[in-house]
Amino acid sequence: MTRGRAQDPNVCGVTAAIAVIDGKWKTALLWALESGPHRPGELLRLLPGLSEKVLTQALREMETDGLVHREVHDVLPLKTEYSLTAFGRDLSEALAPLSDWGHRRLDRLAEAQSAS
Amino acid sequence: MTRGRAQDPNVCGVTAAIAVIDGKWKTALLWALESGPHRPGELLRLLPGLSEKVLTQALREMETDGLVHREVHDVLPLKTEYSLTAFGRDLSEALAPLSDWGHRRLDRLAEAQSAS
Repeated sequence: MTRGRAQDPNVCGVTAAIAVIDGKWKTALLWALESGPHRPGELLRLLPGLSEKVLTQALREMETDGLVHREVHDVLPLKTEYSLTAFGRDLSEALAPLSDWGHRRLDRLAEAQSAS
Repeated sequence: MTRGRAQDPNVCGVTAAIAVIDGKWKTALLWALESGPHRPGELLRLLPGLSEKVLTQALREMETDGLVHREVHDVLPLKTEYSLTAFGRDLSEALAPLSDWGHRRLDRLAEAQSAS
């Protein structure tokens, strides 16, 4: 646990983590890749609303950030697959409690709205 | 665990959680308040660089979001203290693994920089 250091926001771990999942698709991509390697076309089918352009950019950034690994299989036609690195899998696991908390917040907001 | 739902980014728990800690001070405030109730002046001393104006705004938003509780003690001079709600404490705990991961990322970035 390194909460103490977080009091200096310049070395805030939370900020450093959020920086790699900004945008609305990267968390969804992390979780889609948890079940194993996927081809880009499969990811597009799993995530309706995600465009090919945004997917390409997100995967490129996630590769740079060490979250995903790109593998080109040496067959014709060339087959490209993306998988989580160990570092990316660790991030996905670290995000799970935050996701649960966020769903509790969404439930509270929905309750407050239906009560008003 | 509610990861499945996260594939629709409109109901993404992570996004709903990050929404309440945006800005650079709220995570630090959550952690400063973990040790118990604090007066605004104490928070300003604990968090060098935080201005009174930004603190006031952050605490107000965190109160609206149900993360902190404001208590005005009925003594003269009036004494105002802020404490974490149970919901705020749960968020703080949910953020801890993400903070740890972020510090690992910062360490990796520092290593890569010193190696280049």
